[in-house]
Amino acid sequence: MADVSIEDIRAAQERLAGRVRRTPLLTDELLDARHGAQLYFKCENLQPVGAFKVRGATNAVFALSDGELRAGVVTHSSGNHGAAVARAARLRGVGARIVMPEDTSAAKIEAVRAYGGQIVPCAPTLAAREAEAARLVAETGAAFIHPYDDPRVIAGQGTVALELLEDLPQLDCILCPVGGGGLTSGIAVAVKALRPQVRVIAVEPAAADDACRGFHAAPGTAATAPVPAVPAIAPVPAAGDVPAPRTTVADGLRATVSERTLGLMRRYVDDVVTVSEEGIVSAMRVLWKHLRTIVEASSSVPYAALLEQRLQLAGQRVAIVITGGNVDLDRLPWSRN
Amino acid sequence: MADVSIEDIRAAQERLAGRVRRTPLLTDELLDARHGAQLYFKCENLQPVGAFKVRGATNAVFALSDGELRAGVVTHSSGNHGAAVARAARLRGVGARIVMPEDTSAAKIEAVRAYGGQIVPCAPTLAAREAEAARLVAETGAAFIHPYDDPRVIAGQGTVALELLEDLPQLDCILCPVGGGGLTSGIAVAVKALRPQVRVIAVEPAAADDACRGFHAAPGTAATAPVPAVPAIAPVPAAGDVPAPRTTVADGLRATVSERTLGLMRRYVDDVVTVSEEGIVSAMRVLWKHLRTIVEASSSVPYAALLEQRLQLAGQRVAIVITGGNVDLDRLPWSRN
Repeated sequence: MADVSIEDIRAAQERLAGRVRRTPLLTDELLDARHGAQLYFKCENLQPVGAFKVRGATNAVFALSDGELRAGVVTHSSGNHGAAVARAARLRGVGARIVMPEDTSAAKIEAVRAYGGQIVPCAPTLAAREAEAARLVAETGAAFIHPYDDPRVIAGQGTVALELLEDLPQLDCILCPVGGGGLTSGIAVAVKALRPQVRVIAVEPAAADDACRGFHAAPGTAATAPVPAVPAIAPVPAAGDVPAPRTTVADGLRATVSERTLGLMRRYVDDVVTVSEEGIVSAMRVLWKHLRTIVEASSSVPYAALLEQRLQLAGQRVAIVITGGNVDLDRLPWSRN
Repeated sequence: MADVSIEDIRAAQERLAGRVRRTPLLTDELLDARHGAQLYFKCENLQPVGAFKVRGATNAVFALSDGELRAGVVTHSSGNHGAAVARAARLRGVGARIVMPEDTSAAKIEAVRAYGGQIVPCAPTLAAREAEAARLVAETGAAFIHPYDDPRVIAGQGTVALELLEDLPQLDCILCPVGGGGLTSGIAVAVKALRPQVRVIAVEPAAADDACRGFHAAPGTAATAPVPAVPAIAPVPAAGDVPAPRTTVADGLRATVSERTLGLMRRYVDDVVTVSEEGIVSAMRVLWKHLRTIVEASSSVPYAALLEQRLQLAGQRVAIVITGGNVDLDRLPWSRN
């Protein structure tokens, strides 16, 4: 299992300069008063493609040599990672094939096309996605970029923490949502290398709590559970006590942690807690109202832990990562449509 | 008619430091490609209270002496100005009475209360609002702060331009929406003093086009039209060819320009154009999708001028002021509820 080091994350930061945005922090004095804490929201929803995924995808693409890229890149994704890989490949001047299930929403297909990605449709099963991506790699020699089970991707996501530590010298705690674990493990590696007293807490929907179970499992527990039936993105060899994800409104967090990401989380993350579906929707609405920024359901999960009082953070300086802002504006979770 | 100078705006900038946010600029590479221009969105929706109004209100409150503030401040508002005055008064440590019509929405009342403003209800007519505010001023000696027909408020709003000129040395053009004209005239004064080659273009709903008509009227035209029947905020002695506003989704722009603001616009603004209601709603939706920031209808008006091709800005660097982000999330203009 390849590890990820702070040097990898620093190298990623140099690679990303000028290619992704250094995202702003938002604050709201009314939310601070409500929670008795200083909350800093790191707005990865304001990245190109609207998600932190540009960091990992761009780092992975630009870490490859010209030779490795001669046939372009391939990934499979029904979400933000596909658009992020398409964009990174275009910046690098190579082609990107994005394997997408035939039932992917028009908006997600449009996002990949907007960045010049070539869409390769496949049957709407995980097996079909993986097979199609593997076939493309074998036939063309293109480079495969996994959404999270890739050290270059994890290092790219970890650059979020470098910016937080630079911008907030008095930080006490970082909250982030966990899906496949690429962001969480990258952040945790950076924080524990540079300022280990800062706590890193991952928050997950109770309805998709594989990371929480894996994190709190007895040491040495290995991957034994069956792979989930229809995850949002491809599972890699799973680790820990991994249940089949049930439905969560936080569709970006349905992925399952990998052995690599869970291993990093177990070493470097301070805690993993879960929140309810109702809490996620309430949090999303509060954030829209108070921050006036478009936060997708997955990104509302960490703040839901404050709303549901799952964490005691009074008096602390807390950074909360808003991971993305891609929302179907015709189907907001609080509307009756 | 008291004028507003660049010195007033510079003084406002010093007064606002640490009290309002220096707002970020958002960009989107896909929008830039679509319009063949470099668009920079100045996010005043990310201010406290969610609107640029904090600039003018805070400057006005902090420009007053302790003696002038001994009985606090008074305004009448059914919108963002009321919350902005309440917040500024609290920062200064004085009381604020906000006269609000009895039919004001619960959300707007809550916003004023959240910042410690004392709400004084009145009958839902303009006359009642003005009478109640005048009574409070006469009885208590409180200082009255008009939403836009006040040189201190105009100077505060003009600080938006100072930040734009500092952040964007190569700027060609600034687009802003116009309601009462405080923001537009403040920006125009600053720009023409500091970098007169930068064009300042105000955009207005065709359904509330008093500023456009007044701006394009023959020189010397005075206020002759009747005061609008039910403006969103109190008209002051009106100027130019002022029609009764018809209904517009951009409820923040229903106010009528004053002699002062129209006078400044005629001297310093380069053009005023109008857009359709359909264009405003389309623009709002495009901005939500691409910028992932919550833009109220009034703030979507300038971008609507690009969508409707009312302006030729190809190849230019264009700043667009997003004036506010207070939206009823249960009644989005594109939903059927």
